[in-house]
Amino acid sequence: MFEDTQRKEISELGEFGLIQNLTETLQNQHKSTVFGVGDDAAVLGEGKIKTLVSTDMLVEGVHFDLSFQPLKHLGYKAVVVNLSDIYAMNGKPEQILVSLAFSNKFSLQAIQEIYEGIRLACEFYEVDLVGGDMSSNQKGLTISITAVGTAQEDKIVYRKGAKENDLLCVSGDLGAAYMGLQLLKREKQVFLANPDMQPDLDGYDYILQRQLKPEARKDVIEALSKAEILPTTMIDISDGLASEIFHLCEASQCGMALYELKTPIDPQTVSSAESFNLDPMTCALNGGEDYELLFTIDQKDFEKIRDIESVSVIGHVTSKEAGKVIVTKNDNQFELKAQGWQHFS
Amino acid sequence: MFEDTQRKEISELGEFGLIQNLTETLQNQHKSTVFGVGDDAAVLGEGKIKTLVSTDMLVEGVHFDLSFQPLKHLGYKAVVVNLSDIYAMNGKPEQILVSLAFSNKFSLQAIQEIYEGIRLACEFYEVDLVGGDMSSNQKGLTISITAVGTAQEDKIVYRKGAKENDLLCVSGDLGAAYMGLQLLKREKQVFLANPDMQPDLDGYDYILQRQLKPEARKDVIEALSKAEILPTTMIDISDGLASEIFHLCEASQCGMALYELKTPIDPQTVSSAESFNLDPMTCALNGGEDYELLFTIDQKDFEKIRDIESVSVIGHVTSKEAGKVIVTKNDNQFELKAQGWQHFS
Repeated sequence: MFEDTQRKEISELGEFGLIQNLTETLQNQHKSTVFGVGDDAAVLGEGKIKTLVSTDMLVEGVHFDLSFQPLKHLGYKAVVVNLSDIYAMNGKPEQILVSLAFSNKFSLQAIQEIYEGIRLACEFYEVDLVGGDMSSNQKGLTISITAVGTAQEDKIVYRKGAKENDLLCVSGDLGAAYMGLQLLKREKQVFLANPDMQPDLDGYDYILQRQLKPEARKDVIEALSKAEILPTTMIDISDGLASEIFHLCEASQCGMALYELKTPIDPQTVSSAESFNLDPMTCALNGGEDYELLFTIDQKDFEKIRDIESVSVIGHVTSKEAGKVIVTKNDNQFELKAQGWQHFS
Repeated sequence: MFEDTQRKEISELGEFGLIQNLTETLQNQHKSTVFGVGDDAAVLGEGKIKTLVSTDMLVEGVHFDLSFQPLKHLGYKAVVVNLSDIYAMNGKPEQILVSLAFSNKFSLQAIQEIYEGIRLACEFYEVDLVGGDMSSNQKGLTISITAVGTAQEDKIVYRKGAKENDLLCVSGDLGAAYMGLQLLKREKQVFLANPDMQPDLDGYDYILQRQLKPEARKDVIEALSKAEILPTTMIDISDGLASEIFHLCEASQCGMALYELKTPIDPQTVSSAESFNLDPMTCALNGGEDYELLFTIDQKDFEKIRDIESVSVIGHVTSKEAGKVIVTKNDNQFELKAQGWQHFS
């Protein structure tokens, strides 16, 4: 009883509160630590070419479900989510290190399948697999990947740097990966209830692919560079548009206005959301796992950004006092809430 | 039945066989990938100062037992084992990234304890904590740490590079961490059998400290540099002296002769081994978790190495044909077997 009242639960803090709690008193000692905790990747090194390092851990039963996630796709996805963090700094990923821990239910063939996916991602994104670790696990599979990249010092884009009237942009479309996951979960339930039923996944290729085999937006980074646009801030969308807007606003000490009508959502996402009685915009805001790039640019770059097909302007930067608002289709304004994806709830 | 005969078990391959199986066809594409899989750390970068990156995952129930490993010590140890890999390249660790996955049995206070240990290690070894990831876990605790360091290109020491007649050296003493673990396991069994019994750990401080709070040999790297000795090969002892000798011999395509009489073993390790009816030399050869540095030097450096108190010359490099042998106290020669620490058996 006494213990229960004293014990502080991590779910009260959430992932970001926890990281803040644990790291707020840290002090960096090295000149080579240009930027530490608090962005998509750490920025290291003393030369003009900086090293970017980011790491992510994927845990079975938390981040993926092997009853519908093919192992090869999982290996591919594990690499992609890490590379996405390097691109989100406007960097170029060059190497990865892969650590796997797995229980004895995994055969050599299963591990080879995961590695086949890792290898495919390495080939496609032109990164080298340079190290890692291999261990047994008490239960299930854990994949931890560290991505290493480079960027010219003056081309690195942080979460900090947005100023009033900058334009808020996003690549691709949002909410599809989340709807893919809902569909897979539903068909799993149907199958568990009646194993004779075949999963009904026809016509949902796009949202399934977005969930099972997402891509990182290397092409967008290249297009921005070609168009000579240097974003003022950037982040990748892993936890949902709303949550990432909060991160940019907090780091840049600004507000943002997001326009529902401008927010890109694929028709398949819309129709599947409706079949689940979900609001597509809510899926876009809070679904996550999109691995699209959310960034702000100076207004002077508006003409240039219009020429990049895969990018939409979805809002603009306001003052901190104006807060984070969403302007709905009917021109109503609401305060934006960041629910994101809660690991610890 | 059919499945059973087809399924290939990972325990048949072992950790290193598995890594080889998975990575042997990999081809590095980047000029910045100087050295990838197959040493203590990857060597990256195009300048004269190279970036060293290494990663290790510690899994509850596999690498540590929380019934006798205090959380703060565990955090400290998790950092140390990673820094040890950077030192083993003759590098200087500068940053770490820490990923934790933990089940809901862990309170905020527990996670703070782990971080307190991480912070202490960061302070002692002067490294910055610059990033990481935090996730829930289905069961237990997993810690994945990536260490980043630097080294001047021409000062990096690989596993490859030993030549005949080089001297084989080791820092500190061996087998103590293994005996510490045996002691903790025994007292745990005694406690489980009769919870009224108090653990009897008196007089075993050294071997317990070596198991619970090992240190990385930053001091030895500094002493070697001061003495202007550049080892021809180096590796840290995580899996046991014998296993690491095998790694050096394979990478350098050489043989080695190890002298039992010269192998440093602490008196407390000897006495505790005897109380367990274990041969102390077997503990030194196969126990592991020593995190000492095993390295070879040119004969011309013999006088210089004698002045470094914490280093012992324990053997020499021979031809590949001569194989890996141990010369016993009685001057008998036996072929060395590397049993090391088997994760997957």
